[in-house]
Amino acid sequence: MKAWEIRDWNFESLVLGECPEPVLGPRDVLLRIKAASLNYRDPLVVERGYGRYTGELPLIPIGDAVGEVIETGAAVTRVAVGDRVCPCFNQSWLDGPYATEHWWNQLGGRLDGVMRERMAVDERFVVKVPDHLTDLEAATLPCAGVTAWSALVEAGGIQAGDTVLVQGSGGVSLYALLIAKAFGCRVIATTSNAAKAKRLEALGADAVIDYTADPDWGRTAWDMTGGTGADVVVEVGGADTLKQSLRAVAGGGTVSLIGNLSGNVVELNLPSVFLKAARMVGIVVGHRASFEAMARCFAVNRLRPVVDERVFTFGELHEALRRQREGSFFGKIVIRFD
Amino acid sequence: MKAWEIRDWNFESLVLGECPEPVLGPRDVLLRIKAASLNYRDPLVVERGYGRYTGELPLIPIGDAVGEVIETGAAVTRVAVGDRVCPCFNQSWLDGPYATEHWWNQLGGRLDGVMRERMAVDERFVVKVPDHLTDLEAATLPCAGVTAWSALVEAGGIQAGDTVLVQGSGGVSLYALLIAKAFGCRVIATTSNAAKAKRLEALGADAVIDYTADPDWGRTAWDMTGGTGADVVVEVGGADTLKQSLRAVAGGGTVSLIGNLSGNVVELNLPSVFLKAARMVGIVVGHRASFEAMARCFAVNRLRPVVDERVFTFGELHEALRRQREGSFFGKIVIRFD
Amino acid sequence: MKAWEIRDWNFESLVLGECPEPVLGPRDVLLRIKAASLNYRDPLVVERGYGRYTGELPLIPIGDAVGEVIETGAAVTRVAVGDRVCPCFNQSWLDGPYATEHWWNQLGGRLDGVMRERMAVDERFVVKVPDHLTDLEAATLPCAGVTAWSALVEAGGIQAGDTVLVQGSGGVSLYALLIAKAFGCRVIATTSNAAKAKRLEALGADAVIDYTADPDWGRTAWDMTGGTGADVVVEVGGADTLKQSLRAVAGGGTVSLIGNLSGNVVELNLPSVFLKAARMVGIVVGHRASFEAMARCFAVNRLRPVVDERVFTFGELHEALRRQREGSFFGKIVIRFD
Amino acid sequence: MKAWEIRDWNFESLVLGECPEPVLGPRDVLLRIKAASLNYRDPLVVERGYGRYTGELPLIPIGDAVGEVIETGAAVTRVAVGDRVCPCFNQSWLDGPYATEHWWNQLGGRLDGVMRERMAVDERFVVKVPDHLTDLEAATLPCAGVTAWSALVEAGGIQAGDTVLVQGSGGVSLYALLIAKAFGCRVIATTSNAAKAKRLEALGADAVIDYTADPDWGRTAWDMTGGTGADVVVEVGGADTLKQSLRAVAGGGTVSLIGNLSGNVVELNLPSVFLKAARMVGIVVGHRASFEAMARCFAVNRLRPVVDERVFTFGELHEALRRQREGSFFGKIVIRFD
Repeated sequence: MKAWEIRDWNFESLVLGECPEPVLGPRDVLLRIKAASLNYRDPLVVERGYGRYTGELPLIPIGDAVGEVIETGAAVTRVAVGDRVCPCFNQSWLDGPYATEHWWNQLGGRLDGVMRERMAVDERFVVKVPDHLTDLEAATLPCAGVTAWSALVEAGGIQAGDTVLVQGSGGVSLYALLIAKAFGCRVIATTSNAAKAKRLEALGADAVIDYTADPDWGRTAWDMTGGTGADVVVEVGGADTLKQSLRAVAGGGTVSLIGNLSGNVVELNLPSVFLKAARMVGIVVGHRASFEAMARCFAVNRLRPVVDERVFTFGELHEALRRQREGSFFGKIVIRFD
Repeated sequence: MKAWEIRDWNFESLVLGECPEPVLGPRDVLLRIKAASLNYRDPLVVERGYGRYTGELPLIPIGDAVGEVIETGAAVTRVAVGDRVCPCFNQSWLDGPYATEHWWNQLGGRLDGVMRERMAVDERFVVKVPDHLTDLEAATLPCAGVTAWSALVEAGGIQAGDTVLVQGSGGVSLYALLIAKAFGCRVIATTSNAAKAKRLEALGADAVIDYTADPDWGRTAWDMTGGTGADVVVEVGGADTLKQSLRAVAGGGTVSLIGNLSGNVVELNLPSVFLKAARMVGIVVGHRASFEAMARCFAVNRLRPVVDERVFTFGELHEALRRQREGSFFGKIVIRFD
Repeated sequence: MKAWEIRDWNFESLVLGECPEPVLGPRDVLLRIKAASLNYRDPLVVERGYGRYTGELPLIPIGDAVGEVIETGAAVTRVAVGDRVCPCFNQSWLDGPYATEHWWNQLGGRLDGVMRERMAVDERFVVKVPDHLTDLEAATLPCAGVTAWSALVEAGGIQAGDTVLVQGSGGVSLYALLIAKAFGCRVIATTSNAAKAKRLEALGADAVIDYTADPDWGRTAWDMTGGTGADVVVEVGGADTLKQSLRAVAGGGTVSLIGNLSGNVVELNLPSVFLKAARMVGIVVGHRASFEAMARCFAVNRLRPVVDERVFTFGELHEALRRQREGSFFGKIVIRFD
Repeated sequence: MKAWEIRDWNFESLVLGECPEPVLGPRDVLLRIKAASLNYRDPLVVERGYGRYTGELPLIPIGDAVGEVIETGAAVTRVAVGDRVCPCFNQSWLDGPYATEHWWNQLGGRLDGVMRERMAVDERFVVKVPDHLTDLEAATLPCAGVTAWSALVEAGGIQAGDTVLVQGSGGVSLYALLIAKAFGCRVIATTSNAAKAKRLEALGADAVIDYTADPDWGRTAWDMTGGTGADVVVEVGGADTLKQSLRAVAGGGTVSLIGNLSGNVVELNLPSVFLKAARMVGIVVGHRASFEAMARCFAVNRLRPVVDERVFTFGELHEALRRQREGSFFGKIVIRFD
């Protein structure tokens, strides 16, 4: 069957080829992939951006997908043929605190990913998706959706009435906006232009700050809360934004550290953390229990993930990765398989 | 100034009289009471239903009210003249776990309550109310609202997508319905007739079960969740309902024990608790931090408490207590003071 | 190879026979069983005491054992040949909250148990045991040890300085005593005679109450804490003890419901729960993460489980079960396999 | 009565003078101070090291003390004349999450501190001290003891069997060592010479690393845990140590940020946080509930705080502050008042 493979650590060596049909273990299910979705990490993987954690050649790329169960191992009980499921991005983390062993079990590096027609997955690491979602929407859940849930719910413990700050309009940030509104939170979003601001408001943002016009936007957010601060900040920017995030966060509040869009090394002013008894929590996607909880949240509240206007075909992986890398999208970049 | 007093432990000895003007300590605020609200416990207090915990004669009854700050002690910093605030039902519990010492510090027994024109309260035990609420609505927050919040949020840890089961249409149950919907939960409500069922649906209930027609409603609720159960059950009925509540609750779920409408002594089948690893949590209203969080939730989500159709005047305390006792109301019974 | 089997639901039909050699899946490990241990449930299983949850005939009984890894499947990474491990009593619960699906995955009913020479177990559901323990000691960890850990740590959240109340000298109670002392807690134990009282004190109990001489022992425990109560009560008695446990527990404290030695149905006085905002939490053993944490606790603090003076051989299963049922032991009943 | 005052923001203007006798409010208690203790912050306060948070002139310095209750206001119920109590360092934080309002209510800046013969304190913000402690020992509890408790218990959630890493032999670090051992944890300590290493081992440290000989001590600590890492790191060093602390910490583990001995600004490598899903939590001493819990822990486990060999008299405040600033002490610096 057809599969994309990274044969050497560069884009030229990312090629469409063939891979063998998967063999099912007794607790495995066979998925026919229907759509995949890209994340910030996917173009980095092609160039071995996570060092030894990236995995070994050849590697089937991309971590997010939705598929249909077309066959089940003899001992499978949790799903059935015909179910529409996503494989968990992390294939060993069921629930509870993170352990470093889980780092090695991510789809699309170190483990082979989803860019193939069919794949076998342990039934314990797939999650059924809400019926009201299209395949394109459902494909975006595993990585960005679970990350946002971990940041807000697991790390942040959000409650209705809390204030949440989200940054920009990448996949995680838009998911965080949707989830925070479903929880009855007030959402302050940052963005770089008026058109995006409008779309953020249409998705439910209660206030939008243009960070290009207002470099001290953390202070502005603080003032918007009447001087109590944002209970949770979903921090995706890294070097350029952390200082403002700590300015915006409430006493005893949480900064969920997810991204490093603007660089890996930040200058951290310790008293800005002490003074507020702030909590900074590193997020590595999340466990299956979070995925299941998020899927319930989407089903009960009829939420729909935001899919970027440009959808790609199975053959257009290079084009899709390029768009991901360039950053000029709104919502999740999706690849349809048929 | 005018005040209602219980002079002996019976309804005949509940009379309208005079009490001295309060003296402000340095951290006290003086409230002009604008409206009060009744709870299940208030008629019981008149007949010393809580034994030594009820307090001593004479006692000013009723725990819930909203007032305007008309004077502040010299050291007050948290509120200002003109603020509209509720006194906390519990006047010693700020935050954190419950301790038995708090039992002694409840308004309207053991401490003097709110049925007087003006009262002094420590600024640390008042909470500002959302602007969009009328006085009648705001008066209902302290006891029923905080109890519902404790049951769902503090004890139950509800998340968007969870299923919550509420019983009937008393004050706590309607608050629980509103709060659960604000959190993005699915709500199953029980009731005794079609007219009330309609009102519950209008308030957001996703499903309503008539418990008179369906005595095994706990099983019905279980089935409605596809066999996973209700994550939190807000249990107000006591003897008659606990068995069904344990039938409805999810594995690892929470039954918040609040009321004993149908009796104090229940037969508990231990395996029904073991089997599910269920948690049964006694609720005693809640702390100031919960009140503040609930007030934020109501403000951000523009929620409105449900006030019973019949509103009483300051002079009609006996009539109001009778209505509370008879149970044929929908929402909170309120007394306006002007 | 040799195996004990329940061929019909009575003790006569519990016989020593043969079972086929296990076949290893890619993530399975093969264990040579070195010792097994009995629990309260094991004699009940023989007579199908858990109804449909007990499983189907024929059934290999007993849930607790320690074994040596003598072979590993091709994909195994967590353990190696030569490791000494216990299978988890629950073979699906890794971490996080309980779900009802886990009920079906307990060793020794519904799943086949440990009374056979060798067994295959998924590597994800075995836990390495501390080096300083003998095989006899290690065999007692999975059920009683994990239950005590769940009761105190997961449900009770004990901290150094807390007061813990344990009842009698069964397996769970003695484990709870050891663990509570390792956490720096104060332990009050109940017992029925002076000889057992001495042994409990030798194990670290700070105070022992003779419940035959003092039927209102809950009040006595309350007074011993200076009127603040026990932070956690490990409740194993059921019908006869729950009332006293609720008397002993602190405001906001936890009663971990584990056992029903004296009956399934209890009369519960609801105000005794409300008044204290007590939490009653059903315990169903626990997850692998608790087992691993408990094993670390035993290793770091060099704790030793208490093994009953009479140890049985593989052939003496009937005798061992009889001793378990009669209740006149102190510590865990163990069966050695060689 | 005699009192030390900061009259201008320099050491020359820290002088011994007179202050008026305190006036008791109805819920205040009058303390005769018996001993005080210094913290890292105290010398900084003299030079207005916390800017506007330091408070206004004149200021009575020093935050930690123990005193005897010699008079009580009319409404006091929690303590009695003759009780030996410490004022809480934070005079508004009873329990629950931190809020920025609490920053303003610390003894010895912004509020007047303890260097006076008698002081009035709200009964809600004093804590009784364990009987087995001397006055010198008890005086050290409020700031260093509560900070260590917050770092380990509130932020870190330590359990018996966990590994805790503490740095050096300052007040918070030694408290953390004692508390972690009381909880049954394994403790790895860092230090700069063999003599201190010996004293740390005598206090219970399971392993000591000389950070001058081993600059990559974080890696060493990691290896000592068999590659799982320290569950909680009590980080007091700031700029020089954070990188090593993140190397030592476990996946999902906690770095409690307390001190900045070596500078305010650190370079933070974000992937070192993401990779481990680490939590970095700013600690600002703690609430009364933590103080009470810690006091219980000390009483039950008969722990004794470590007092530096040199004890000062009331008149020697300058000398005591100098010793604090120079850093060549072991344990807490104490001032006796008689």
